[in-house]
Amino acid sequence: MNKLLSESLATATAGVSLLHDALLNQGVSTQAVEWSPPLGGKDLHDVMADQRRSVANELALSKMLNSGAVLVDVKPASEALNLGRGEFLHAGPPIEWSRASGPMRGALIAAMLYEKMADSAEAAELILEKNGVALEPCHHRGAVGPMAGVVTPSMWMFELQDPSTGNKSWCSLNEGLGKVLRYGAYSPEVIERLDWMRDVLGPLLQVGVRAREEHIDVRAIISQMIQMGDEGHNRNRAGTLMFLRDLLPFMIEGGTSSDVARAARFVGGNDHFFLNLVMPACKLQTRAAENIPGSTIVTVMARNGTDFGIQTSGTGNEWFIGPAQTPHGLYLGNYTADDANPDIGDSAITETAGIGGFSMAAAPAIVRFIGGSVPDALATTRRMYEICEGENPTFGIPVLEFRGAPTGIDVTRVLRTGILPQINTGMAGKVAGTGQVGAGLVTPPMEAFTAAITGLATRIV
Amino acid sequence: MNKLLSESLATATAGVSLLHDALLNQGVSTQAVEWSPPLGGKDLHDVMADQRRSVANELALSKMLNSGAVLVDVKPASEALNLGRGEFLHAGPPIEWSRASGPMRGALIAAMLYEKMADSAEAAELILEKNGVALEPCHHRGAVGPMAGVVTPSMWMFELQDPSTGNKSWCSLNEGLGKVLRYGAYSPEVIERLDWMRDVLGPLLQVGVRAREEHIDVRAIISQMIQMGDEGHNRNRAGTLMFLRDLLPFMIEGGTSSDVARAARFVGGNDHFFLNLVMPACKLQTRAAENIPGSTIVTVMARNGTDFGIQTSGTGNEWFIGPAQTPHGLYLGNYTADDANPDIGDSAITETAGIGGFSMAAAPAIVRFIGGSVPDALATTRRMYEICEGENPTFGIPVLEFRGAPTGIDVTRVLRTGILPQINTGMAGKVAGTGQVGAGLVTPPMEAFTAAITGLATRIV
Repeated sequence: MNKLLSESLATATAGVSLLHDALLNQGVSTQAVEWSPPLGGKDLHDVMADQRRSVANELALSKMLNSGAVLVDVKPASEALNLGRGEFLHAGPPIEWSRASGPMRGALIAAMLYEKMADSAEAAELILEKNGVALEPCHHRGAVGPMAGVVTPSMWMFELQDPSTGNKSWCSLNEGLGKVLRYGAYSPEVIERLDWMRDVLGPLLQVGVRAREEHIDVRAIISQMIQMGDEGHNRNRAGTLMFLRDLLPFMIEGGTSSDVARAARFVGGNDHFFLNLVMPACKLQTRAAENIPGSTIVTVMARNGTDFGIQTSGTGNEWFIGPAQTPHGLYLGNYTADDANPDIGDSAITETAGIGGFSMAAAPAIVRFIGGSVPDALATTRRMYEICEGENPTFGIPVLEFRGAPTGIDVTRVLRTGILPQINTGMAGKVAGTGQVGAGLVTPPMEAFTAAITGLATRIV
Repeated sequence: MNKLLSESLATATAGVSLLHDALLNQGVSTQAVEWSPPLGGKDLHDVMADQRRSVANELALSKMLNSGAVLVDVKPASEALNLGRGEFLHAGPPIEWSRASGPMRGALIAAMLYEKMADSAEAAELILEKNGVALEPCHHRGAVGPMAGVVTPSMWMFELQDPSTGNKSWCSLNEGLGKVLRYGAYSPEVIERLDWMRDVLGPLLQVGVRAREEHIDVRAIISQMIQMGDEGHNRNRAGTLMFLRDLLPFMIEGGTSSDVARAARFVGGNDHFFLNLVMPACKLQTRAAENIPGSTIVTVMARNGTDFGIQTSGTGNEWFIGPAQTPHGLYLGNYTADDANPDIGDSAITETAGIGGFSMAAAPAIVRFIGGSVPDALATTRRMYEICEGENPTFGIPVLEFRGAPTGIDVTRVLRTGILPQINTGMAGKVAGTGQVGAGLVTPPMEAFTAAITGLATRIV
């Protein structure tokens, strides 16, 4: 005691500034440490104390790592998903027309015109306003859709299967960039392209896929593309090229040469074509980890342009929602931040599976493109390891000495660290009909994670 | 003087160990510094003092950086290079049959069988022993050939042109790996494959290349592949895929579907196919820097399996020679180091142009494949900057924050630092007929550089 009083004191404070200010007022030199109590309060405490959690999360990670994804077929959504006339799927958690954002409305209008359920945008809006179409999230059918993610019965879908579970997942064919349905555009060129995709591209892809003796291993291609500068969300160039290499010879043998040549140019000219195969592969990975009681691992992150929703393994298909944030990034042409709609699309399934923004270190060209640096890319991936249950050796990141992609977002880690998942994304114009305005980075709202911890806490037995 | 004697001495020695040993014998603590006098002696001194050198080397680099390479045609060597019956080209500096290594002999035998100049290996050897065929280096015709690099009149060649100079360069079509002519194999499967390449693949590539309105920009593809995990010598996967993407639609429109499908499978199944376009593109780059009086920049590094030869800008087409070294690396199947032939092929033109081993940092998968680490790859590229005149911003290396590839090997820097160029390479079996036994790393003999400095010194005006 004597010693403590006779020597000069070194003090540090943490949390609220009250103590720090009081010490300064008394002329005591002190150091303030930035700290705030973890979010989630008693619910987080209870979930952390849940005896099932640790093993449940290990199992969830293990199931993710053991999952696979092969391309088994290409066919219309009417066949693949039993989607009937007047039924549309969309990205993100459930939403109705009245709360839908501009690009979601634009995509639904395009869908009405494409399905010949209306002959003008105005006529389409009237029907949609009166809830004349049944809307349902893609995720409710095991499917995923980029951006607005609108799927109609006549659209052709990739059908992927996970050999480890038998589960299937689906995604529509990628339309390219710019004025396209999934970004909310509905001009005649959009519908004409969709018509060609229905009449020519879809059937040709089907011919190729069905002619192959061995299924194309989408997961193996993802493993390769991660070594070729792609992160599988905003960059899919190598993946698209490997897909073309594996399928085109069979399309050449089975199609007419002018159609095949046009299809080859369309796919080869669209570096994002393979995204629509990466997404259902990632869905199969996270789906393998669904419904494990006590597991706090995130199995879905998805946005509809208004809300951002997540699902966790331990809470089944319940959505936990917060407001969708607006991405920051690079804008096309004369567009600015004012033109951008809040975050939209099921493509955050890539981050949920450990690639995309989580594997930014694999794709330094992206971060450089939007004004960042290579160290930024490395720092992003390193930060994501802090909120993940483990690593995926199948997706080895070259610059990190082939360390596996950070995999299995743990809700408790997000709340304890305050680190939000990093998502790479495209940006849709907020006015219906605009199309793409840019690409950039975004994070989910913390509300979705605090809601999820409450959902997990209520399920403790 | 007083102070020097009164205080304890700190000593260091450099160079030969005589002084170091003498001090130790007298009980004086001392530190030996590793140092050896630069190689090249008075010739190096004279060349360093040459007033033209600095500007000449700047010009050589500038011409390399401004060069381009587009694919203008595909045609038989008889047309492209006016190669007549009984005339063969080969890799590296000049060589005759009596001094030729096993793989060079095997390739020449294969060439005789392919051209129907002999009906058995024994008959072919008899003719070759009697110098019944005219042998000439590829480089003497502005061409380049991987491994044995043997070119015969009936082989189809890529024809590339540099828009900045009008120069042309050529390379044969890549046969794939394993049992192939360029690795010295001559079994019936080798000849059958070459026959198909002559009768089907070559003409189809010609149809595609001639149908395109715009020439394929090979240099632009190299710029992209460097961002996709390829270093352009031992890894050409992304390059091959981009080449297929750009050419295949035109082949589909111009060929019969069964031929095109087979060609697409052949090219898509051979990650090295694009090497034979990278090599002439690199030749055009270094050729742009040829014949600048006073320049000490290396314009050719090439091996024939016996000798390693270099050429420099300031010495025109004179060869400076040393013994070819045996690469270290990974062996296929049951092959060992005992099976490997010394270094062979014109493919070191890639390193001469700043990619391949010089851009190892762009392709960590390669160094990992042969047991090294990602830091090894970075260290290799960083070391190469020390012997180069500058950097090529067109070939930006992602992990080095897109720093340009180390470009323009300077003979004086090689001699002053003792750092030899790092070359990635395939390994041929030393017994004629074997084919490929592995892939690995190698350096040139220092003798070639000391000979070059003498050649440069004698040309000082």
